[in-house]
Amino acid sequence: MPDRNAELTILSRDADLLKNEITALNCNALRIVQCATRADDIDTDKVHILLADPDLAVKVVEQCHQLRWCQSTWAGNKPLLQLAKQDYTLTGVRGIFGEKMREYVFAYLLHFSRDIDTFRALESAPQQHRWMQPAPGTLQGTTLGILGAGSIASSLLPVAHAFGMRVIGLNSKGEAQPGYDAMFASADKQTFAAKCHAIVNLLPDTSATVNFIDERFLSALPEGAVFINAGRGSAVDDSALLNALDNGMLRAAVLDVFRQEPLPASHPFWSHPKVWVSQHTAAISAPEDVARVFAENLDRYLNAEPLHYQLDFERGY
Amino acid sequence: MPDRNAELTILSRDADLLKNEITALNCNALRIVQCATRADDIDTDKVHILLADPDLAVKVVEQCHQLRWCQSTWAGNKPLLQLAKQDYTLTGVRGIFGEKMREYVFAYLLHFSRDIDTFRALESAPQQHRWMQPAPGTLQGTTLGILGAGSIASSLLPVAHAFGMRVIGLNSKGEAQPGYDAMFASADKQTFAAKCHAIVNLLPDTSATVNFIDERFLSALPEGAVFINAGRGSAVDDSALLNALDNGMLRAAVLDVFRQEPLPASHPFWSHPKVWVSQHTAAISAPEDVARVFAENLDRYLNAEPLHYQLDFERGY
Repeated sequence: MPDRNAELTILSRDADLLKNEITALNCNALRIVQCATRADDIDTDKVHILLADPDLAVKVVEQCHQLRWCQSTWAGNKPLLQLAKQDYTLTGVRGIFGEKMREYVFAYLLHFSRDIDTFRALESAPQQHRWMQPAPGTLQGTTLGILGAGSIASSLLPVAHAFGMRVIGLNSKGEAQPGYDAMFASADKQTFAAKCHAIVNLLPDTSATVNFIDERFLSALPEGAVFINAGRGSAVDDSALLNALDNGMLRAAVLDVFRQEPLPASHPFWSHPKVWVSQHTAAISAPEDVARVFAENLDRYLNAEPLHYQLDFERGY
Repeated sequence: MPDRNAELTILSRDADLLKNEITALNCNALRIVQCATRADDIDTDKVHILLADPDLAVKVVEQCHQLRWCQSTWAGNKPLLQLAKQDYTLTGVRGIFGEKMREYVFAYLLHFSRDIDTFRALESAPQQHRWMQPAPGTLQGTTLGILGAGSIASSLLPVAHAFGMRVIGLNSKGEAQPGYDAMFASADKQTFAAKCHAIVNLLPDTSATVNFIDERFLSALPEGAVFINAGRGSAVDDSALLNALDNGMLRAAVLDVFRQEPLPASHPFWSHPKVWVSQHTAAISAPEDVARVFAENLDRYLNAEPLHYQLDFERGY
């Protein structure tokens, strides 16, 4: 029996599903002591290990004086990282979003390049104007630009390459990353933007990335570019984006994340014809994926080994 | 100067574009003697080498007594293969469709798995019912079945594998093909169908493939399967397909090819909500692609080497 206290509290919208997945692990050293979908239902004195949605965890961790380790179920951990309480290990779920993210990104890139809506509209055109054979575009030979070239971004590379795309990336200092045709530093964002037929933002939410996608950046994009935001809402200057769409330079903006979520009902993004709102579902972590990450880390925890995907309170991600 | 007669007739809807591409080859041994968009404008006595859309070529080749070689611009060469005249070399354009086809197929597979229409519809839902975060599906771990495992089909494999799909194929005798997780023979089509979450038909148009996709085949598919026909219209029993869609087993049918093209204005496919008509644009050969294939074969022709992509009058493809 390991000497570490393996009493688990689950606090998540998927609490029951997570409990089932974790019970199925048959780990004798682990005991699930609490399982709740609402922060109010947690006895904070009993929290040693916490598996939690970060927006629920943030409501309780400061009262959890026994907390040793919190395994988050999502990528959005900034509120936890900003709390004064930092005397525990916080782990994220890097690695499980890539499979979803690559499908999300290419679903929309192909949707636009193949003009699916144009063909759909022709099905209800007047009878004599249906068979028009509009010529679709292609991803082959075009350039995909990725803002924030981390682990989720790297999952896009094999698919982009399979479609014959060139991939360029941007990170703060333009450090080389495997698999990219070129890397650019934040300071060169306009040079970078000018080369991209499609842009995917995956920048983390730090003070340096707020409003990174601004008028300067957007106006440098080639005409007809598609912009996808699957990182953080704060990275985009909303009005600059709406201007770029209205001035006709951008073909479309596919937005998964927003400064305020749920996106307020009156926000102009909802009704703008060139904005596609995917409601923060681009890379939902399925309970079985989260349970797999937790299981791996639990094993390391019980053996007093360093945990995977530790977040850094200092750096803020 | 080679002793072969290199006088070229171009007969194609893209005649001018093809002429420009071929002129740019700067081949001294080649002379473009005729260039037309309509069969009536061709002097058949002057036809030695013919670069032609096959549906236009079929109107003239029997009168072309000097014809040595016809380079077709499309994949649909059955009408030419069925003519009595077979004393010339007929070459197709295999190899140039794959890049387009893989984008076509995955555009639609991802469109359905990511539920793009559901998110789009929510944008115009009543204000309080917009942010619903519907959970998208995934291609990861699902099985793609390909009917007709030839060269175009093989272009789908790297993309399917990049998305973590399993790929199984079917050809007449179930012969092994590189890159497939399993192969099935035509006789086992129901066993094959039962394993497929998505089906792409790329069978050639032969007597053995007419109505291959029939009630037996369609009823064996798992519920919610997506069917894509990018091969030939004759491979599908239209009424069986409509029945399968109406009985709710199939999620969608994406149809690029039809028994009669243009698809007649009154055909029920146009108005069926689960049918997506892509108007034979899945893999349009761009003039520059056709010119590239022609240039390679011209080089071989002038050097009296066997041409690439020769079609077989006996086998019919």
